[in-house]
Amino acid sequence: MIENLFLFSNFPYFINSYLLGFLTNGEKYGQILTISITLVSLSIFIFSRFCREITARMGLSPVIGDLIAGLAIGVSGLHILVPEGETINPLLVNLIKLIVNTTPEQIQTIFDSPVNIIVEEYAEFGAGVILFSIGLESNLKELLKVAWQSAIVAVIGITLPFIFGFWGLAYLFHLPTIPALFAGGALTATGLGISAKMMQELGVLQSKEGQIILGSAILDNILAIVILAVLISIVQTGMVDLGNVAKLILIAALFILSAVLMNRFFGPWFITQLEKLKAPESVGMGAFILFILWSFLAGIIGLESILGAFAAGLILGATKARDELIKKVGVLCLIFETVFLVSIGAKTDLSLLNPTVASNRPSLILALFLIVVAITGKIMAGFFTFSSEKMSRLGIGTGLVPRGEVTLLFASLGGAIGILPPSINVAIVLMVISTTFLSPPLLRVIFKSSPSQSQT
Amino acid sequence: MIENLFLFSNFPYFINSYLLGFLTNGEKYGQILTISITLVSLSIFIFSRFCREITARMGLSPVIGDLIAGLAIGVSGLHILVPEGETINPLLVNLIKLIVNTTPEQIQTIFDSPVNIIVEEYAEFGAGVILFSIGLESNLKELLKVAWQSAIVAVIGITLPFIFGFWGLAYLFHLPTIPALFAGGALTATGLGISAKMMQELGVLQSKEGQIILGSAILDNILAIVILAVLISIVQTGMVDLGNVAKLILIAALFILSAVLMNRFFGPWFITQLEKLKAPESVGMGAFILFILWSFLAGIIGLESILGAFAAGLILGATKARDELIKKVGVLCLIFETVFLVSIGAKTDLSLLNPTVASNRPSLILALFLIVVAITGKIMAGFFTFSSEKMSRLGIGTGLVPRGEVTLLFASLGGAIGILPPSINVAIVLMVISTTFLSPPLLRVIFKSSPSQSQT
Repeated sequence: MIENLFLFSNFPYFINSYLLGFLTNGEKYGQILTISITLVSLSIFIFSRFCREITARMGLSPVIGDLIAGLAIGVSGLHILVPEGETINPLLVNLIKLIVNTTPEQIQTIFDSPVNIIVEEYAEFGAGVILFSIGLESNLKELLKVAWQSAIVAVIGITLPFIFGFWGLAYLFHLPTIPALFAGGALTATGLGISAKMMQELGVLQSKEGQIILGSAILDNILAIVILAVLISIVQTGMVDLGNVAKLILIAALFILSAVLMNRFFGPWFITQLEKLKAPESVGMGAFILFILWSFLAGIIGLESILGAFAAGLILGATKARDELIKKVGVLCLIFETVFLVSIGAKTDLSLLNPTVASNRPSLILALFLIVVAITGKIMAGFFTFSSEKMSRLGIGTGLVPRGEVTLLFASLGGAIGILPPSINVAIVLMVISTTFLSPPLLRVIFKSSPSQSQT
Repeated sequence: MIENLFLFSNFPYFINSYLLGFLTNGEKYGQILTISITLVSLSIFIFSRFCREITARMGLSPVIGDLIAGLAIGVSGLHILVPEGETINPLLVNLIKLIVNTTPEQIQTIFDSPVNIIVEEYAEFGAGVILFSIGLESNLKELLKVAWQSAIVAVIGITLPFIFGFWGLAYLFHLPTIPALFAGGALTATGLGISAKMMQELGVLQSKEGQIILGSAILDNILAIVILAVLISIVQTGMVDLGNVAKLILIAALFILSAVLMNRFFGPWFITQLEKLKAPESVGMGAFILFILWSFLAGIIGLESILGAFAAGLILGATKARDELIKKVGVLCLIFETVFLVSIGAKTDLSLLNPTVASNRPSLILALFLIVVAITGKIMAGFFTFSSEKMSRLGIGTGLVPRGEVTLLFASLGGAIGILPPSINVAIVLMVISTTFLSPPLLRVIFKSSPSQSQT
């Protein structure tokens, strides 16, 4: 019946429905997937542009624009891009049904799995290109100059939230030791992708403060992964396997050290070799391969893959190809960082923040505590920056406030091994959301600059 | 057992296997998928670079390099990127098992479906960005100047292979009328993506010949889709629904006409509006949204989505942002056209060409016939270019020789509705492969230029 309606309808896309009636299931599946991905991408980019324009006119960061765009199309808004299991917008379903002859169930299934997976792959790639471009833009000499300051801020910025968090959860909220340790650990790592992007947008990345924030964020990410390994080892064996922990620290140290050395020696040599090749665009593609390879290596040795992307950028950051590469990566950033940022907003479920719903309250109170600890811990750490120069120590702390990937890793692993009850898990996610949303405007106020408006 | 081996092994990636033991199935699935996609991407880009370098040194086209890279990693080679159902390389499986604690079956399942789908999405995007950049680079005035020549070459280039093909299949191979018509129709459309890319590489796109090839390829693609609709209408109702055919032709004509008009009026106005926006990079992102939207529209009205990508490029081709956009799209091309070209090679099963296998022979003989008709039909059409100017009519015909997406649409639809027997289907695929591989070196010899070596 419905098929016939389509065949003889006056819709201009008759030919498609027409042909699709004959397609094999695999081909039809592919067609629906392509249409779905296209509609989701269009929503991401159009909403991002719209919200970025509004935030630009208000003097706010584009990061905020994209996060709001994510809220608008995600689980808190239009339900166009939603996590697996969430119902997608019926209007969207009807639109797809107008184009392809299919059922709402099949559309929902396709959104549940491949669409989500593909958008996640794009988002991960987006976080990678952000860090790669930050690595390229970083001046290693300047970064090394503030290495000690960064290390101290990183260690204090990990210790304070960890201890306050653990103490509060154990003694105020009466959590058992292990879950309290886990949730405390979740407070430690800065959201490197958001933090770096936010500084780049504000134009403070090259400042002394920016260098200390970047250095501390990288170090606290690595240290947080070490803490995660230690906690899992405790859960699993009841004790700390010092050998494994030492091995992880050693590998991480070697990874950083090798990037520093490669920035000096391998990078320039690599670019020179690529320039000798006869095939066009060898430098760009060689750099791209290095970026993928290093992201992959970092993942293999147990670090976050975006740390690898940063290292790859650092390795090529002192070469003559640097400026050209920054321009090229900029094009990839334009597209894929938008997917990364919007998809964070899309996952954010604002209904969890509704205090009139009784079941939200335990998580909300817990979240409020975690948010306070997460923010004050990092801001206090910023004041431990030793330096004779005048600099904004408040700014340094604020730059480290956003939480991200590694924190969510604590939450998901803690949930998976059954030691974090759902209410704590939700609280951790709320903490990530709040710090991510709060940091960009705070940082902008503190640094009182708005370079994105330089066009005006 | 194996889990324990990993936990206490000396592999540096112990922490990963360590953590992954606790992951939920969904997270583990995501991790395996990311690792698989990364390894496939690395293979695509590294093999592409290697083969492009060799072809550059031999004075051959990068297109050939990528196709050979595809052969090397695909179903005819290392089995790293293979179609659903084909076994992937056991070495690759073992490599992934070293990183993640999983089973060969799960890895195969993940390669079968999401990996293939994601690579196909990248490849489609690649074909899209090629056509978008060709549209941007096209000089509409020059293209319209040769509109009549292009139209005549397109019509003859469709008629000759269609009639010769139908006649030979019906009278030499004794095929029933409908399958012979279908297989004849499959010979009509030029592979727009390959043809355009090949001319861009040779630097002949801006020449008179290049303009005629491009114009004819666009028209023969549209006409072939009309033929496909007519054939399906015959199969379905036993007669031609002239109303529907007229509607399709009208829509296609409106689509082309609107792009021509929009190039003049809408494009420049659109860019001016985008430039007024305050958010950075509005022009680039606005153009990108137009590109996705137009690809989508073309698909909805029953045309190929790459025709929409071309139209979007054309619309923006007379604006002041043109040169900047060409540069930006170039970065996307660098990455995604490689995926498109390599994935064509990867699908190519050379074992079908082995004449010592008896079951291959009927298809091989049929394929040989189709290849001869496909090549001579288009080359003869080239000689019908009317012009008082001196130009390579042989070159024009050769530029139209490669077959691609639309041809495969005939094959897959013909197979799906059960009117094309497998032997003919295989023969059509072999014809697509052969024409794709033969055209770039032929065209290069004819135009005797090798601009890709201009660096030397």
